[in-house]
Amino acid sequence: MTKVGVILSGCGVYDGSEIHESVITLVALSRQGADVAFYAPDVAQLHVIDHAAGAPAEGESRNVLVEASRIARGAVTALADASGTDCDAWILPGGFGAAKNLSSFAIEGAGCTVNPQVERVLREANEAGRPLGFMCIAPAIAARVFPGVTVTIGADPGTAAALESMGATHQVTAVTEICEDADRRIVTAPAYMCEASLGDIATGIEALVARVVALAR
Amino acid sequence: MTKVGVILSGCGVYDGSEIHESVITLVALSRQGADVAFYAPDVAQLHVIDHAAGAPAEGESRNVLVEASRIARGAVTALADASGTDCDAWILPGGFGAAKNLSSFAIEGAGCTVNPQVERVLREANEAGRPLGFMCIAPAIAARVFPGVTVTIGADPGTAAALESMGATHQVTAVTEICEDADRRIVTAPAYMCEASLGDIATGIEALVARVVALAR
Repeated sequence: MTKVGVILSGCGVYDGSEIHESVITLVALSRQGADVAFYAPDVAQLHVIDHAAGAPAEGESRNVLVEASRIARGAVTALADASGTDCDAWILPGGFGAAKNLSSFAIEGAGCTVNPQVERVLREANEAGRPLGFMCIAPAIAARVFPGVTVTIGADPGTAAALESMGATHQVTAVTEICEDADRRIVTAPAYMCEASLGDIATGIEALVARVVALAR
Repeated sequence: MTKVGVILSGCGVYDGSEIHESVITLVALSRQGADVAFYAPDVAQLHVIDHAAGAPAEGESRNVLVEASRIARGAVTALADASGTDCDAWILPGGFGAAKNLSSFAIEGAGCTVNPQVERVLREANEAGRPLGFMCIAPAIAARVFPGVTVTIGADPGTAAALESMGATHQVTAVTEICEDADRRIVTAPAYMCEASLGDIATGIEALVARVVALAR
């Protein structure tokens, strides 16, 4: 059975993994007959956002791995305990957590760094030829870790420019489409970076999952 | 456009709404062309469960509506401000939140009570002929609010017996099937009450959503 590692960054679009993107990924992986394992860095979130108020919840602190386990319904492995060859493929949903907890892209833009455990696992997987999938804002991580990669974040010009200034090539795509860097075996999809219906966002994510699983087999 | 109210109970299977069930519902509603509005009681959660440890997080407190807004990606209306006729249909995903925050079923079983705002909105909707959908453990709420209703929670004998002792008729169903009480316009599906693949759980929820939307039109 193809084993796909899903790297989460918390639980909630504004301070963690985008929940819809994560679950659509999981349903698609199940329907592709893939086995899923969950991973996250065992670190504090950058901050906690009250998603009703749309503002930081002052004085609150939450752990990325603990909150990610809400989406996982249980066990999430700390990335420090993982190797890139533990799975046949890896997928990173989006959400601000990818740009706040897995990397510093939300704060530092093109000058961002990537969490060292995230970077190490992605490099190990890539060097072993394992396909990688990134959606929404997570392609910013691919741009930083894999210089010269071709990715999509949809069509937002500011974000596309930031990725290109990190050395990536940005490809404009519609929400239902995917972008594939065939040499690097890296697949990206815009998901919630596009203003679109949830059904169309799901169609794009399902296409990404199908392609990543096909590359892994 | 058919407007469907989704009543959430937090964000996470052990202390709130089951995240997978909630998102599958939202994707299915989008693909059915329905409009979604989110509702929750504006109350403290019964408790907070650390989903990685599977144990209560001592000293932590979270609000049901605020956590539900993570699944909603924003605005959630307090049920106190809602009427059952505000939507053409209503759907309640499961998760322990339905049995801990929307009702006391997790603690009191067949002797449970339902949050008064949840009960009022469901009664108003039902009296106006609006279809209602309940999945996973949420049919326990239907059993309490609508005496004599026919529902399913899958095949778990203990839970089925508790619902029957509240006066409901329990119908055994497979995870991909739904149960319909045609007189009351109440549709139920077992979802995570069955041990099944996420793909099969999604198939059952998609069937529930399709039927509820069809009844509303």
